[in-house]
Amino acid sequence: MLYDLIIVGGGPAGITAGIYAARQKLNTLMITKGFAGQIARKAVAIENYPGFESTSGLELIQKFESHLKKHKIDIEKDTVNKIKKKDKTFFLLTGGKKKFQSKTIIVASGADPRPLEVPGEKEFIGKGVSYCVACDAPLYAKKKVAVIGGGNSGFEAALALSSWAEKIYIMEASVKPRADESNQEKAGKTGKVEVITEAAVKKIQGQNFVESLVYQDQKSKKLINLEVGGIFVEIGSQPATSFVKGLVDFNERDEIMVDSKSGETKTPGLFAAGDVSDIPYKQVVIAAGEGAKSALAVSNYLRNFNS
Amino acid sequence: MLYDLIIVGGGPAGITAGIYAARQKLNTLMITKGFAGQIARKAVAIENYPGFESTSGLELIQKFESHLKKHKIDIEKDTVNKIKKKDKTFFLLTGGKKKFQSKTIIVASGADPRPLEVPGEKEFIGKGVSYCVACDAPLYAKKKVAVIGGGNSGFEAALALSSWAEKIYIMEASVKPRADESNQEKAGKTGKVEVITEAAVKKIQGQNFVESLVYQDQKSKKLINLEVGGIFVEIGSQPATSFVKGLVDFNERDEIMVDSKSGETKTPGLFAAGDVSDIPYKQVVIAAGEGAKSALAVSNYLRNFNS
Repeated sequence: MLYDLIIVGGGPAGITAGIYAARQKLNTLMITKGFAGQIARKAVAIENYPGFESTSGLELIQKFESHLKKHKIDIEKDTVNKIKKKDKTFFLLTGGKKKFQSKTIIVASGADPRPLEVPGEKEFIGKGVSYCVACDAPLYAKKKVAVIGGGNSGFEAALALSSWAEKIYIMEASVKPRADESNQEKAGKTGKVEVITEAAVKKIQGQNFVESLVYQDQKSKKLINLEVGGIFVEIGSQPATSFVKGLVDFNERDEIMVDSKSGETKTPGLFAAGDVSDIPYKQVVIAAGEGAKSALAVSNYLRNFNS
Repeated sequence: MLYDLIIVGGGPAGITAGIYAARQKLNTLMITKGFAGQIARKAVAIENYPGFESTSGLELIQKFESHLKKHKIDIEKDTVNKIKKKDKTFFLLTGGKKKFQSKTIIVASGADPRPLEVPGEKEFIGKGVSYCVACDAPLYAKKKVAVIGGGNSGFEAALALSSWAEKIYIMEASVKPRADESNQEKAGKTGKVEVITEAAVKKIQGQNFVESLVYQDQKSKKLINLEVGGIFVEIGSQPATSFVKGLVDFNERDEIMVDSKSGETKTPGLFAAGDVSDIPYKQVVIAAGEGAKSALAVSNYLRNFNS
């Protein structure tokens, strides 16, 4: 079967695209491992999706999911390994070795946490190194932990950890944290958060489990050993895009470059929306808006498809 | 007082910008007649704002309003007559002759219904000519009415009218209605809707109240008199932008042209979001996303304001 549209990914952008596509009566398939995106992992309440004064990431994505499922749409629980285009048709190969064909694609595969890439990081994953505060915070009750990264996600991680950990160091590479004032204030009020600026993390050490990290103080150039029992890496994300290499252009953050009015990539019929694209500001409501745009742009594209 | 940000308009774009601005601790004023935007006037349920499977426009905007009011933000119930910029400061004059100053502006003033501009239209406003089905549909119980415009808003108006009116003609100027398939199907199912294509409405007539309209059939070029007791004009909208003339560029639809990644206009510090801007596809979730983007872009702009 030739679909009108295949949506890759089931986060806020993909789900909104799915709702809009179904309401346009497009014959649509969504391929996703699950309904989540970044937001299901968020450790603190979401208070900036208009209409919901305060909700958890999980609760919000469940509302999105049930909203989507009210509509007629095929869903395949799988990953995508490769997309090719031949003439006007896209051919998809999934991780489960299934094949699908479609007239258009919306890539809404989101982004994965960016690794720190220092010695010890890989070895200690699941043994003190974590990329998911929402998943792992309770494991660090009454421990000293470090959060790497002083952006909003770093401070939000610290806030979530403050219900459990005894002490939280936020390690920021530059002179000043980049997080919102409100997040910095809240962190200050916990009495548990200490921000260490101009700190370049060099190494993670321990026996069976993380025991400390080593960082270089950029002012004195000294190497400093900081005893921590856990390390949360919050230095951004890398878009999940390997399956469209060759079909799209990437910016310096490896995000898919799109026409910012339609979400279309350099390949006609191939669109991208949400955290995977180069639209700035990674926010649920922005991803949802971009998902709606791309589905409406797909609908326009299909009007000319057979002409 | 010099505000960090003044937001003009209280629809989905303005409210979302307000929520984001307040969370960035910007000293923010919103100037708006009321909390509404286009969506409070929508006659049918809103089923495409993710997270709410089905809601009325009024209910959704009230949720938005109460979400906004949880945050610290000044609100002035007024209109804006004129905005000027001197050096780096914006000066606003309101309809109520108040003056305000701000470092940045987000114009989110939405759009008003576009008039048909045929003889009889102005004379019969409130006497059979309406731009608001949600407001006026019950007045047309058991009457024949015409909806001018075969887009989504025309079909949605017809659907809402079908609970009241006896017969609804949809007058479409082109060969085929532009509304979504799903809207056309639903209208068909009412058994009350007749679509007249290639119809150019020329005149509205009556004694004290509308009695008929005259249209030209574009195939035969004949003028045809159609007896209707009410006429709903649904041919799009015109952005509410007169107060920023000279500071921004407009496209052919009189929408404010913006950088589609930030919402910034050609005047530094002056942003636009929502139906008033040239971002395509007028949808609640898209307007909300653009509002969030513009507030985050304002925050970036202010970081460099004093440097």
